[in-house]
Amino acid sequence: MVTIPGSGINSPSFWSTFQRVTFTLGRSVNQHFLLGKTAAIQQWRSEGRAAVWLHVPILQSRFIAPAAALGFSFHHAEADSSTLTLWLGQGPSRLPGYATHQVGVAGAVFDESTRKILVVQDRNKLKNMWKFPGGLSEPGEDIGDTAVREVFEETGIRSEFRSLLSIRQQHSHPGAFGKSDMYIICRLKPRSFTIELCPHECLRCEWMDLTDLAKAADTTPVTSRAARLLLYGHREGFEKIDLTMDQLPAVYTGLFYKLYHRQLPDSYKMMTGVD
Amino acid sequence: MVTIPGSGINSPSFWSTFQRVTFTLGRSVNQHFLLGKTAAIQQWRSEGRAAVWLHVPILQSRFIAPAAALGFSFHHAEADSSTLTLWLGQGPSRLPGYATHQVGVAGAVFDESTRKILVVQDRNKLKNMWKFPGGLSEPGEDIGDTAVREVFEETGIRSEFRSLLSIRQQHSHPGAFGKSDMYIICRLKPRSFTIELCPHECLRCEWMDLTDLAKAADTTPVTSRAARLLLYGHREGFEKIDLTMDQLPAVYTGLFYKLYHRQLPDSYKMMTGVD
Repeated sequence: MVTIPGSGINSPSFWSTFQRVTFTLGRSVNQHFLLGKTAAIQQWRSEGRAAVWLHVPILQSRFIAPAAALGFSFHHAEADSSTLTLWLGQGPSRLPGYATHQVGVAGAVFDESTRKILVVQDRNKLKNMWKFPGGLSEPGEDIGDTAVREVFEETGIRSEFRSLLSIRQQHSHPGAFGKSDMYIICRLKPRSFTIELCPHECLRCEWMDLTDLAKAADTTPVTSRAARLLLYGHREGFEKIDLTMDQLPAVYTGLFYKLYHRQLPDSYKMMTGVD
Repeated sequence: MVTIPGSGINSPSFWSTFQRVTFTLGRSVNQHFLLGKTAAIQQWRSEGRAAVWLHVPILQSRFIAPAAALGFSFHHAEADSSTLTLWLGQGPSRLPGYATHQVGVAGAVFDESTRKILVVQDRNKLKNMWKFPGGLSEPGEDIGDTAVREVFEETGIRSEFRSLLSIRQQHSHPGAFGKSDMYIICRLKPRSFTIELCPHECLRCEWMDLTDLAKAADTTPVTSRAARLLLYGHREGFEKIDLTMDQLPAVYTGLFYKLYHRQLPDSYKMMTGVD
């Protein structure tokens, strides 16, 4: 526990762990709160503390510029609060960064009985290319759920998750505020077949023969690749192309996580009895 | 182009696209800048504009609380600036969110000739479990590069990327500031064999027989699963478990992206000539 010098603090909660000092500005924190901090920062540095974390409610943002003058910078901000950090350790900051990737998911809805695949052309694109319906994951949304939701929103088709087919990683993405983009294509099985196009998002939507898509020129390279993977899977068995999904309990959160990899033969599934 | 009412603006750059109003606060923007904005926001809303984006340099953060009083909230912040948004459209905000995931990568360094795999035990964990060395991707870093870097930093072992084996998605991750976590295991080939343990990160590190790891109880479920995948691949061919990597040119950025999926047979690779 660290005693933070300075007066006029109403209800900041502050604590120290792993050589870190953290405090949260309370609603009625005094204007002079940061004035005494220069000496405190010197002391924390001499004590070997690694970093100071400062949580600022948005309506208290008048403290941000003075904190910046002390050397703090933004770690992240969302909705109604921001978090600033000051690295006190030797060398460059070793503080963990904030989220670096957005996750986009597309659904390749394939009807095995007719060999048709659901494709769309986006609105507002210079060049109209056939691709799979998809979009960005909402916070906390599982990959397969994003695929099913986006397919339904764009095309009116109901579907269910089957497997994960491909992962693309792209940096400095223009649509991701300069962050990185992970774009995942899932194989989905259709549960309905009548297209109800979303006119805001899609220009065209159709069930296309998979071979035509695999050979099409007016498609994106990633879509083309996935179409050829699906054709291979359709002919030789989807186990050749699928990453299947398992749900496992998380140690720390008590929540569940989802794990995707090539299906293991039964003889390899129960070697330990752990899962 | 939108004319923003209000005086005293020194050098804000502001423009409109897709029914959006964006402005950046200049260094000497006047204290009264936001006072005239209530009427302007009414007007933009009546004009059918969807959103206002406000970019605030950290030293201008005194404008954040007044903007919040007008209804703005944080979209994101990093280093020395923050971005706030105000949704003007009908219904809930349809603005794209900010990055939602951190990406962690582990390297499963497997020596085929000896059937040994490189495993570590972390420091500072209550329960010592064998796992693969790994850590968070740096901004802009490719998955395979993170694996190779982290393996070297933790164990001193040099290695090269072979394939991607598994992907885990976990939400509300305690180590990710409540954001989601994507944890990817790569198969790496060793280029050196003498362990030089990083004492800050690792408690123990050794080359373990792969069968022992696949059967071990003191390992995480994800590590155990990957060990069994590797054992299957070692016995029946790594093409059974690998997602191989290709590099392709990105349309928008001129950069390259990396795409991971099951290897396609040669006859499926060149169906279109596109890639």
